Amino acid sequence: MKIAIYGYGNLGRGVEAAMRQNPDVDLIGVFSRRDPATVSTRTGTPVYAASDILQYKDKIDVLILCGGSATDLPELTPALAKDFCVVDSFDTHANIPTHFAKVDAAAKEGGNLCLISAGWDPGMFSIARVYGQAILPEGQDYTFWGRGVSQGHSDAIRRIPGVVDARQYTVPVPEALEAVGHGENPTLTTRDKHTRECYVVAAEGADKEAIREAIITMPNYFADYDTTVTFITAEEMARDHAGLPHGGEVIRNGRTGIHGLSTHTIRYSLRLDSNPEFTASALVAFARAVYRMKQRGRTGCVTVLDIAPADLSPLSPEELRAHML
Amino acid sequence: MKIAIYGYGNLGRGVEAAMRQNPDVDLIGVFSRRDPATVSTRTGTPVYAASDILQYKDKIDVLILCGGSATDLPELTPALAKDFCVVDSFDTHANIPTHFAKVDAAAKEGGNLCLISAGWDPGMFSIARVYGQAILPEGQDYTFWGRGVSQGHSDAIRRIPGVVDARQYTVPVPEALEAVGHGENPTLTTRDKHTRECYVVAAEGADKEAIREAIITMPNYFADYDTTVTFITAEEMARDHAGLPHGGEVIRNGRTGIHGLSTHTIRYSLRLDSNPEFTASALVAFARAVYRMKQRGRTGCVTVLDIAPADLSPLSPEELRAHML
Repeated sequence: MKIAIYGYGNLGRGVEAAMRQNPDVDLIGVFSRRDPATVSTRTGTPVYAASDILQYKDKIDVLILCGGSATDLPELTPALAKDFCVVDSFDTHANIPTHFAKVDAAAKEGGNLCLISAGWDPGMFSIARVYGQAILPEGQDYTFWGRGVSQGHSDAIRRIPGVVDARQYTVPVPEALEAVGHGENPTLTTRDKHTRECYVVAAEGADKEAIREAIITMPNYFADYDTTVTFITAEEMARDHAGLPHGGEVIRNGRTGIHGLSTHTIRYSLRLDSNPEFTASALVAFARAVYRMKQRGRTGCVTVLDIAPADLSPLSPEELRAHML
Repeated sequence: MKIAIYGYGNLGRGVEAAMRQNPDVDLIGVFSRRDPATVSTRTGTPVYAASDILQYKDKIDVLILCGGSATDLPELTPALAKDFCVVDSFDTHANIPTHFAKVDAAAKEGGNLCLISAGWDPGMFSIARVYGQAILPEGQDYTFWGRGVSQGHSDAIRRIPGVVDARQYTVPVPEALEAVGHGENPTLTTRDKHTRECYVVAAEGADKEAIREAIITMPNYFADYDTTVTFITAEEMARDHAGLPHGGEVIRNGRTGIHGLSTHTIRYSLRLDSNPEFTASALVAFARAVYRMKQRGRTGCVTVLDIAPADLSPLSPEELRAHML
């Protein structure tokens, strides 16, 4: 099984690193929109110009797109789905149906199989929500994110005048997490579930009070949350906030029995040192499933919800039944 | 989608109760090996003689087998797989490959699709193990069971002379669970992972020391564990140990990154008030998947690892993508 990476940022480097852990998968190269001469990979994998990719059509079983959801993937995935089996990590939840329709049409036209929105949310958390609701239909589920860095919220702070750098952590409210984890089904507002911690490097002479006010009142991003803003130096930012950790939990509380008297709690939780590396590892596993399903004749667009767990594993069905079931 | 229940013990009653939570599924009846006149269901569902089941062949889309793994299912599932799409909860891990082969042959002969070993372990825990290993190939996983009642171990105690009744709880060792949950990968012996708590009602005049000794030295069941034995009255048994709670956790700790420096923890945990009712709810969801996959032409035997999450849900693919992904 031969894969290629399209885009060589944090996510692309994560996919490259995941290769050494998946001996059944070969990485044939990285495609970049930068000048290939200026890009050096960490494992010596060759770099090609993105504009030349059609020349490699017959050498690539699955193409893993490592671009951003805001501007890259809405264009790139449908454009490439006509010629390649593509896997992406498109994560703008509200736009998934539109993205799916475009990719599905292109993939069917080219006879390819594509998978969108792999990762952890959407991705493994979506899977946890579906399993939870299917097995405990009478109940409620909750998704908590963090403690972890939200890159979208960090970017939003960086766009404020006078801000040099920023890092935003999403943090679940401990009391809410504890109540839900103990089987209670409270009604929780946005503010009840998460707080937002912002670490900001301000430009010299910038009005810090104005920056703080601009952050905590920012609609959609911060206004509905209890937000704290801490100003730090560039050195502190580099020393204490270089990583991109994340994680969270999907909790489903449900009832069973003829009188609904038995309660059950299903919890799926992730603690991730590196959000992009975990997402990259998921992309490689789902690329394996796409390769297998394509070989069985499946075409069009699918999501993580359409993939049987067995198709993600390098083990054979016999090995899985003997050792993993 | 029309289902029938075969066997009306704790599990069969759990499936019956789950019906009111799954409006897309109709229960057409319960098949019992007892005289149907002596069995009354809790929802008024008709009871038929198990020996008459072939007469109902065309009225049943999926037959849910609610028998025991020790003696019932190894015979029953292959025998019925020729004429019905069957779902069972066969849970003798070591014998799954043999059971699979028999059911697969019978199901293919009859053109049916059967699913074995649904529930939570095997079942949802197997799924968690496969997802964890596929996404974090370099790492280690741990399965902890409990705190919960092991029916097999309780039965083993009841077979000791002088024992009137017994309940055995499997309990994870808190220090082991905590270390693994924090991302450590310790080497754990059987004794390091779980303790066993036994509550025993002894016959009047029985030699309690002999019973205690017989329990804690019993090979396979107790000899490899730290086991405590507490003698209680029949009244205390009825008052404090009537339920069948269970649960546990599957934890996968893995590393990613070019130098393997990022660590990640995936945790799937269950807290179940009623082991049989949760298993029953899983059986109904997997029966839905079997029905759909059979309609798409799939035959033979499958396990929970072969089922895409979307097939378990009553929601349409469009609804899943719009609201659950």
